[in-house]
Amino acid sequence: MPAPIDFYFDFSSPYGYLAARRIEDIAAKHGRDVIWRPHLIGAAFATTGSKPLLEIPMKGDYARIDLPRTARGLGISFRIPEKFPFLSVAAARAFYWLSDSDPSKAKELALALYDRAFAAGEEISSAGAVIAVATGIGVDAEALQAALNDPDVKARLKAEVNAAIERGVFGSPYIFVDGEPFWGHDKLDEIDRWLETGGW
Amino acid sequence: MPAPIDFYFDFSSPYGYLAARRIEDIAAKHGRDVIWRPHLIGAAFATTGSKPLLEIPMKGDYARIDLPRTARGLGISFRIPEKFPFLSVAAARAFYWLSDSDPSKAKELALALYDRAFAAGEEISSAGAVIAVATGIGVDAEALQAALNDPDVKARLKAEVNAAIERGVFGSPYIFVDGEPFWGHDKLDEIDRWLETGGW
Repeated sequence: MPAPIDFYFDFSSPYGYLAARRIEDIAAKHGRDVIWRPHLIGAAFATTGSKPLLEIPMKGDYARIDLPRTARGLGISFRIPEKFPFLSVAAARAFYWLSDSDPSKAKELALALYDRAFAAGEEISSAGAVIAVATGIGVDAEALQAALNDPDVKARLKAEVNAAIERGVFGSPYIFVDGEPFWGHDKLDEIDRWLETGGW
Repeated sequence: MPAPIDFYFDFSSPYGYLAARRIEDIAAKHGRDVIWRPHLIGAAFATTGSKPLLEIPMKGDYARIDLPRTARGLGISFRIPEKFPFLSVAAARAFYWLSDSDPSKAKELALALYDRAFAAGEEISSAGAVIAVATGIGVDAEALQAALNDPDVKARLKAEVNAAIERGVFGSPYIFVDGEPFWGHDKLDEIDRWLETGGW
Protein backbone atom coordinates (compact mmCIF):
# COMPACT_ATOMS: atom_id res chain seq x y z
CA MET A 1 0.00 0.00 0.00
CA PRO A 2 1.51 3.36 -1.00
CA ALA A 3 1.90 6.02 1.68
CA PRO A 4 -1.11 8.16 2.59
CA ILE A 5 -1.44 11.75 1.46
CA ASP A 6 -1.14 14.47 4.11
CA PHE A 7 -3.90 17.02 3.66
CA TYR A 8 -3.30 20.22 5.65
CA PHE A 9 -6.10 22.76 5.76
CA ASP A 10 -7.54 25.54 7.92
CA PHE A 11 -11.25 25.43 8.73
CA SER A 12 -11.40 29.15 7.94
CA SER A 13 -9.86 28.70 4.47
CA PRO A 14 -12.30 28.79 1.54
CA TYR A 15 -9.78 27.14 -0.81
CA GLY A 16 -9.27 24.50 1.87
CA TYR A 17 -13.02 23.86 1.73
CA LEU A 18 -12.91 23.34 -2.05
CA ALA A 19 -9.98 20.92 -1.67
CA ALA A 20 -11.73 19.05 1.15
CA ARG A 21 -14.63 18.36 -1.18
CA ARG A 22 -12.28 16.77 -3.74
CA ILE A 23 -9.19 15.28 -2.10
CA GLU A 24 -10.65 11.90 -1.06
CA ASP A 25 -11.91 11.13 -4.58
CA ILE A 26 -8.58 12.02 -6.15
CA ALA A 27 -6.66 9.91 -3.63
CA ALA A 28 -9.06 6.95 -3.92
CA LYS A 29 -8.61 6.86 -7.72
CA HIS A 30 -4.97 6.02 -7.08
CA GLY A 31 -5.46 3.74 -4.07
CA ARG A 32 -4.28 6.31 -1.56
CA ASP A 33 -5.56 7.14 1.90
CA VAL A 34 -5.69 10.74 3.12
CA ILE A 35 -4.66 11.96 6.56
CA TRP A 36 -6.55 15.15 7.35
CA ARG A 37 -4.58 17.68 9.37
CA PRO A 38 -6.35 20.87 10.45
CA HIS A 39 -3.89 23.72 10.79
CA LEU A 40 -4.09 27.31 12.02
CA ILE A 41 -2.37 29.16 9.20
CA GLY A 42 -2.50 32.43 11.13
CA ALA A 43 0.41 30.92 13.08
CA ALA A 44 2.50 31.13 9.89
CA PHE A 45 1.54 34.72 9.09
CA ALA A 46 4.07 36.12 11.56
CA THR A 47 6.76 34.37 9.51
CA THR A 48 5.44 34.96 5.99
CA GLY A 49 4.12 38.46 6.63
CA SER A 50 0.78 37.46 5.14
CA LYS A 51 -2.72 37.95 6.48
CA PRO A 52 -6.22 36.58 5.85
CA LEU A 53 -6.64 36.35 2.08
CA LEU A 54 -9.80 38.39 1.64
CA GLU A 55 -8.35 41.24 3.69
CA ILE A 56 -5.40 41.74 1.34
CA PRO A 57 -5.96 44.66 -1.04
CA MET A 58 -6.19 43.62 -4.72
CA LYS A 59 -5.59 39.93 -3.90
CA GLY A 60 -8.77 39.83 -1.81
CA ASP A 61 -10.79 41.33 -4.67
CA TYR A 62 -9.40 38.68 -6.98
CA ALA A 63 -10.26 35.87 -4.54
CA ARG A 64 -13.86 37.12 -4.35
CA ILE A 65 -14.08 36.54 -8.11
CA ASP A 66 -12.01 33.37 -8.30
CA LEU A 67 -13.58 31.46 -5.39
CA PRO A 68 -17.21 31.40 -6.58
CA ARG A 69 -16.07 30.91 -10.18
CA THR A 70 -13.88 27.94 -9.27
CA ALA A 71 -16.65 26.43 -7.14
CA ARG A 72 -19.17 26.92 -9.95
CA GLY A 73 -16.88 25.17 -12.43
CA LEU A 74 -16.68 22.19 -10.08
CA GLY A 75 -20.36 22.15 -9.19
CA ILE A 76 -19.62 22.85 -5.52
CA SER A 77 -21.93 25.06 -3.45
CA PHE A 78 -20.06 28.08 -2.18
CA ARG A 79 -20.55 31.29 -0.30
CA ILE A 80 -18.34 33.49 1.82
CA PRO A 81 -19.63 33.47 5.41
CA GLU A 82 -21.08 36.73 6.66
CA LYS A 83 -18.54 36.77 9.49
CA PHE A 84 -15.20 36.34 7.77
CA PRO A 85 -12.40 35.66 8.54
CA PHE A 86 -13.21 33.65 11.64
CA LEU A 87 -11.38 31.67 14.33
CA SER A 88 -11.04 27.97 13.61
CA VAL A 89 -9.51 26.84 16.91
CA ALA A 90 -12.62 25.08 18.28
CA ALA A 91 -13.23 23.26 15.00
CA ALA A 92 -9.62 22.07 14.85
CA ARG A 93 -9.64 20.90 18.47
CA ALA A 94 -12.88 18.99 17.91
CA PHE A 95 -11.37 17.34 14.84
CA TYR A 96 -8.19 16.10 16.55
CA TRP A 97 -10.09 14.89 19.61
CA LEU A 98 -12.50 12.89 17.46
CA SER A 99 -9.84 11.59 15.09
CA ASP A 100 -8.07 9.76 17.92
CA SER A 101 -11.04 7.47 18.41
CA ASP A 102 -12.60 7.56 14.93
CA PRO A 103 -10.57 9.09 12.04
CA SER A 104 -13.33 8.48 9.53
CA LYS A 105 -15.94 10.19 11.72
CA ALA A 106 -13.53 13.10 12.16
CA LYS A 107 -13.41 13.57 8.37
CA GLU A 108 -17.20 13.51 8.31
CA LEU A 109 -17.17 16.22 10.98
CA ALA A 110 -14.65 18.27 8.99
CA LEU A 111 -16.82 18.18 5.88
CA ALA A 112 -19.94 19.02 7.90
CA LEU A 113 -18.19 21.99 9.50
CA TYR A 114 -16.84 23.18 6.17
CA ASP A 115 -20.30 22.89 4.60
CA ARG A 116 -21.85 24.93 7.37
CA ALA A 117 -19.25 27.66 6.85
CA PHE A 118 -18.81 27.76 3.08
CA ALA A 119 -21.99 26.20 1.66
CA ALA A 120 -24.50 27.56 4.20
CA GLY A 121 -22.42 30.64 5.08
CA GLU A 122 -22.99 30.22 8.82
CA GLU A 123 -20.48 30.60 11.64
CA ILE A 124 -18.39 27.70 12.96
CA SER A 125 -16.04 29.64 15.19
CA SER A 126 -17.95 29.25 18.47
CA ALA A 127 -17.85 26.10 20.58
CA GLY A 128 -21.64 26.07 20.38
CA ALA A 129 -21.66 25.95 16.59
CA VAL A 130 -19.01 23.22 16.47
CA ILE A 131 -20.96 21.13 18.99
CA ALA A 132 -24.21 21.64 17.08
CA VAL A 133 -22.62 20.38 13.85
CA ALA A 134 -20.98 17.45 15.67
CA THR A 135 -24.19 16.32 17.38
CA GLY A 136 -25.86 16.49 13.98
CA ILE A 137 -23.64 13.61 12.86
CA GLY A 138 -24.03 11.64 16.11
CA VAL A 139 -21.10 12.88 18.21
CA ASP A 140 -21.76 13.06 21.96
CA ALA A 141 -22.26 16.71 22.88
CA GLU A 142 -21.11 16.49 26.50
CA ALA A 143 -17.97 14.58 25.65
CA LEU A 144 -17.09 17.12 22.95
CA GLN A 145 -17.86 20.06 25.25
CA ALA A 146 -15.46 18.60 27.82
CA ALA A 147 -12.84 17.94 25.14
CA LEU A 148 -12.90 21.54 23.91
CA ASN A 149 -11.85 22.65 27.41
CA ASP A 150 -9.39 19.82 28.00
CA PRO A 151 -5.78 21.07 28.37
CA ASP A 152 -4.56 17.90 26.66
CA VAL A 153 -6.71 18.59 23.60
CA LYS A 154 -5.49 22.20 23.53
CA ALA A 155 -1.89 21.01 23.79
CA ARG A 156 -2.52 18.48 21.05
CA LEU A 157 -3.66 21.14 18.57
CA LYS A 158 -0.74 23.36 19.52
CA ALA A 159 1.68 20.50 18.85
CA GLU A 160 0.04 19.75 15.48
CA VAL A 161 0.26 23.41 14.47
CA ASN A 162 3.91 23.63 15.50
CA ALA A 163 4.71 20.44 13.60
CA ALA A 164 2.98 21.81 10.51
CA ILE A 165 4.93 25.08 10.72
CA GLU A 166 8.12 23.05 11.17
CA ARG A 167 7.20 21.22 7.98
CA GLY A 168 6.79 24.51 6.12
CA VAL A 169 2.99 24.61 5.90
CA PHE A 170 2.18 28.30 5.42
CA GLY A 171 -1.10 28.08 3.50
CA SER A 172 -4.30 26.14 3.01
CA PRO A 173 -4.73 23.69 1.41
CA TYR A 174 -1.19 22.31 1.59
CA ILE A 175 -0.73 18.73 0.55
CA PHE A 176 2.19 16.30 0.78
CA VAL A 177 2.38 13.39 -1.63
CA ASP A 178 5.35 11.11 -0.94
CA GLY A 179 7.16 14.03 0.69
CA GLU A 180 6.46 16.48 -2.17
CA PRO A 181 4.63 19.65 -1.05
CA PHE A 182 1.82 21.13 -3.14
CA TRP A 183 0.26 24.43 -2.12
CA GLY A 184 -3.18 25.61 -3.13
CA HIS A 185 -6.43 24.24 -4.47
CA ASP A 186 -5.16 24.99 -7.98
CA LYS A 187 -2.65 22.14 -7.55
CA LEU A 188 -5.24 19.35 -7.25
CA ASP A 189 -5.18 18.45 -10.94
CA GLU A 190 -1.38 18.38 -10.83
CA ILE A 191 -1.53 16.10 -7.77
CA ASP A 192 -3.88 13.85 -9.72
CA ARG A 193 -1.35 13.65 -12.58
CA TRP A 194 1.50 13.11 -10.12
CA LEU A 195 -0.30 10.15 -8.55
CA GLU A 196 -1.24 8.79 -11.98
CA THR A 197 2.27 8.94 -13.39
CA GLY A 198 4.31 8.32 -10.26
CA GLY A 199 5.77 11.82 -10.47
CA TRP A 200 8.44 13.52 -12.54
CA MET B 1 -12.91 36.84 -34.16
CA PRO B 2 -13.18 36.53 -30.36
CA ALA B 3 -11.38 39.09 -28.21
CA PRO B 4 -7.65 38.66 -27.56
CA ILE B 5 -6.31 37.45 -24.23
CA ASP B 6 -4.44 39.95 -22.06
CA PHE B 7 -1.27 38.37 -20.71
CA TYR B 8 0.31 40.40 -17.90
CA PHE B 9 3.72 39.31 -16.67
CA ASP B 10 6.86 40.66 -15.05
CA PHE B 11 10.21 39.87 -16.68
CA SER B 12 11.57 39.04 -13.23
CA SER B 13 8.80 36.52 -12.49
CA PRO B 14 9.71 32.84 -12.86
CA TYR B 15 6.05 31.76 -13.02
CA GLY B 16 5.57 34.45 -15.66
CA TYR B 17 8.36 32.78 -17.64
CA LEU B 18 6.61 29.40 -17.47
CA ALA B 19 3.34 30.97 -18.61
CA ALA B 20 5.09 32.85 -21.44
CA ARG B 21 6.30 29.52 -22.81
CA ARG B 22 2.73 28.18 -22.95
CA ILE B 23 0.19 30.97 -23.39
CA GLU B 24 0.39 31.35 -27.19
CA ASP B 25 -0.21 27.63 -27.80
CA ILE B 26 -3.20 27.57 -25.47
CA ALA B 27 -4.70 30.68 -27.07
CA ALA B 28 -4.05 29.46 -30.62
CA LYS B 29 -5.90 26.18 -29.91
CA HIS B 30 -9.01 28.28 -29.41
CA GLY B 31 -8.41 30.83 -32.16
CA ARG B 32 -7.37 33.59 -29.79
CA ASP B 33 -4.65 36.19 -30.06
CA VAL B 34 -2.59 37.22 -27.04
CA ILE B 35 -1.63 40.76 -26.09
CA TRP B 36 1.55 40.65 -24.02
CA ARG B 37 1.73 43.27 -21.29
CA PRO B 38 4.93 43.50 -19.25
CA HIS B 39 4.22 44.78 -15.76
CA LEU B 40 6.31 45.79 -12.77
CA ILE B 41 4.59 43.91 -9.98
CA GLY B 42 6.77 45.58 -7.37
CA ALA B 43 4.48 48.58 -7.94
CA ALA B 44 1.63 46.54 -6.43
CA PHE B 45 3.60 45.36 -3.41
CA ALA B 46 3.02 48.65 -1.58
CA THR B 47 -0.70 47.90 -1.82
CA THR B 48 -0.71 44.13 -1.23
CA GLY B 49 2.09 44.16 1.37
CA SER B 50 3.86 41.41 -0.57
CA LYS B 51 7.46 41.19 -1.67
CA PRO B 52 9.55 39.19 -4.16
CA LEU B 53 8.38 35.58 -3.91
CA LEU B 54 11.66 33.86 -3.19
CA GLU B 55 12.41 36.30 -0.36
CA ILE B 56 9.29 35.38 1.59
CA PRO B 57 10.07 32.94 4.43
CA MET B 58 8.41 29.51 3.99
CA LYS B 59 6.72 30.54 0.72
CA GLY B 60 10.11 31.12 -0.91
CA ASP B 61 11.31 27.67 0.14
CA TYR B 62 8.18 26.18 -1.37
CA ALA B 63 8.65 28.06 -4.65
CA ARG B 64 12.22 26.75 -4.91
CA ILE B 65 10.73 23.24 -4.92
CA ASP B 66 7.64 23.96 -6.99
CA LEU B 67 9.25 25.98 -9.79
CA PRO B 68 11.78 23.40 -11.04
CA ARG B 69 9.26 20.58 -10.46
CA THR B 70 6.57 22.36 -12.48
CA ALA B 71 9.04 23.17 -15.26
CA ARG B 72 10.27 19.55 -15.31
CA GLY B 73 6.71 18.26 -15.63
CA LEU B 74 6.21 20.53 -18.65
CA GLY B 75 9.57 19.82 -20.25
CA ILE B 76 10.64 23.46 -19.91
CA SER B 77 14.27 24.36 -19.11
CA PHE B 78 14.44 26.25 -15.85
CA ARG B 79 16.89 27.73 -13.41
CA ILE B 80 16.78 30.54 -10.92
CA PRO B 81 19.21 33.28 -12.01
CA GLU B 82 22.22 33.80 -9.79
CA LYS B 83 21.23 37.41 -9.24
CA PHE B 84 17.62 37.25 -8.09
CA PRO B 85 15.32 39.10 -7.78
CA PHE B 86 16.34 41.61 -10.42
CA LEU B 87 15.04 44.83 -11.96
CA SER B 88 12.95 44.36 -15.08
CA VAL B 89 12.47 48.00 -16.06
CA ALA B 90 14.84 48.00 -19.07
CA ALA B 91 13.34 44.77 -20.43
CA ALA B 92 9.81 46.13 -20.10
CA ARG B 93 10.72 49.44 -21.78
CA ALA B 94 12.39 47.61 -24.65
CA PHE B 95 9.30 45.47 -25.09
CA TYR B 96 6.80 48.35 -25.29
CA TRP B 97 9.04 50.36 -27.60
CA LEU B 98 9.40 47.43 -29.99
CA SER B 99 5.75 46.37 -29.78
CA ASP B 100 4.60 49.71 -31.22
CA SER B 101 6.31 48.95 -34.53
CA ASP B 102 6.31 45.14 -34.48
CA PRO B 103 4.17 43.33 -31.86
CA SER B 104 5.24 39.91 -33.06
CA LYS B 105 8.95 40.79 -32.82
CA ALA B 106 8.31 42.16 -29.34
CA LYS B 107 6.97 38.75 -28.26
CA GLU B 108 10.06 37.14 -29.73
CA LEU B 109 12.17 39.55 -27.68
CA ALA B 110 10.17 38.77 -24.53
CA LEU B 111 10.76 35.04 -24.96
CA ALA B 112 14.45 35.57 -25.68
CA LEU B 113 14.83 37.74 -22.58
CA TYR B 114 12.93 35.24 -20.44
CA ASP B 115 15.09 32.39 -21.78
CA ARG B 116 18.26 34.24 -20.95
CA ALA B 117 17.04 34.81 -17.38
CA PHE B 118 15.28 31.56 -16.52
CA ALA B 119 16.72 28.97 -18.92
CA ALA B 120 20.34 30.23 -19.04
CA GLY B 121 20.21 31.86 -15.59
CA GLU B 122 21.93 35.03 -16.80
CA GLU B 123 21.08 38.63 -15.96
CA ILE B 124 18.67 40.72 -18.01
CA SER B 125 18.39 43.71 -15.70
CA SER B 126 21.05 45.92 -17.32
CA ALA B 127 20.47 47.90 -20.50
CA GLY B 128 23.53 46.15 -21.94
CA ALA B 129 22.04 42.69 -21.44
CA VAL B 130 18.68 43.72 -22.90
CA ILE B 131 20.38 45.24 -25.94
CA ALA B 132 22.55 42.15 -26.41
CA VAL B 133 19.49 39.88 -26.43
CA ALA B 134 17.62 42.24 -28.76
CA THR B 135 20.45 42.49 -31.28
CA GLY B 136 20.61 38.68 -31.22
CA ILE B 137 17.17 38.63 -32.82
CA GLY B 138 17.90 41.44 -35.28
CA VAL B 139 16.80 44.55 -33.39
CA ASP B 140 18.84 47.69 -34.08
CA ALA B 141 21.13 48.27 -31.10
CA GLU B 142 21.46 52.03 -31.44
CA ALA B 143 17.74 52.61 -31.84
CA LEU B 144 17.04 50.49 -28.76
CA GLN B 145 19.77 52.21 -26.75
CA ALA B 146 18.16 55.56 -27.57
CA ALA B 147 14.69 54.23 -26.74
CA LEU B 148 15.77 53.05 -23.29
CA ASN B 149 16.68 56.63 -22.44
CA ASP B 150 13.71 58.23 -24.18
CA PRO B 151 11.39 60.03 -21.74
CA ASP B 152 8.40 59.03 -23.88
CA VAL B 153 9.30 55.34 -23.56
CA LYS B 154 9.75 55.74 -19.82
CA ALA B 155 6.38 57.48 -19.59
CA ARG B 156 4.81 54.75 -21.68
CA LEU B 157 5.92 52.00 -19.29
CA LYS B 158 4.76 54.04 -16.32
CA ALA B 159 1.33 54.46 -17.89
CA GLU B 160 1.10 50.72 -18.64
CA VAL B 161 2.04 49.86 -15.07
CA ASN B 162 -0.49 52.30 -13.67
CA ALA B 163 -3.19 50.94 -15.95
CA ALA B 164 -2.37 47.38 -14.85
CA ILE B 165 -2.56 48.35 -11.17
CA GLU B 166 -5.85 50.10 -11.88
CA ARG B 167 -7.08 46.84 -13.38
CA GLY B 168 -6.08 44.93 -10.24
CA VAL B 169 -2.98 43.17 -11.56
CA PHE B 170 -0.98 42.36 -8.42
CA GLY B 171 0.91 39.25 -9.54
CA SER B 172 2.57 37.51 -12.48
CA PRO B 173 1.31 35.90 -14.60
CA TYR B 174 -2.12 37.55 -14.53
CA ILE B 175 -4.38 36.84 -17.45
CA PHE B 176 -7.71 38.28 -18.59
CA VAL B 177 -9.98 36.19 -20.79
CA ASP B 178 -13.12 38.07 -21.84
CA GLY B 179 -12.79 40.27 -18.77
CA GLU B 180 -12.28 37.35 -16.33
CA PRO B 181 -9.04 37.57 -14.32
CA PHE B 182 -6.90 34.50 -13.71
CA TRP B 183 -3.86 34.75 -11.45
CA GLY B 184 -0.90 32.39 -11.53
CA HIS B 185 0.70 29.85 -13.80
CA ASP B 186 -1.37 27.17 -12.08
CA LYS B 187 -4.46 28.63 -13.78
CA LEU B 188 -3.35 27.87 -17.34
CA ASP B 189 -5.18 24.54 -17.56
CA GLU B 190 -8.31 26.20 -16.19
CA ILE B 191 -7.97 28.96 -18.81
CA ASP B 192 -7.68 26.23 -21.45
CA ARG B 193 -10.94 24.67 -20.20
CA TRP B 194 -12.59 28.10 -20.01
CA LEU B 195 -11.72 28.82 -23.64
CA GLU B 196 -12.78 25.31 -24.67
CA THR B 197 -16.18 25.49 -22.99
CA GLY B 198 -16.94 29.19 -23.28
CA GLY B 199 -16.81 29.57 -19.52
CA TRP B 200 -19.09 28.74 -16.62
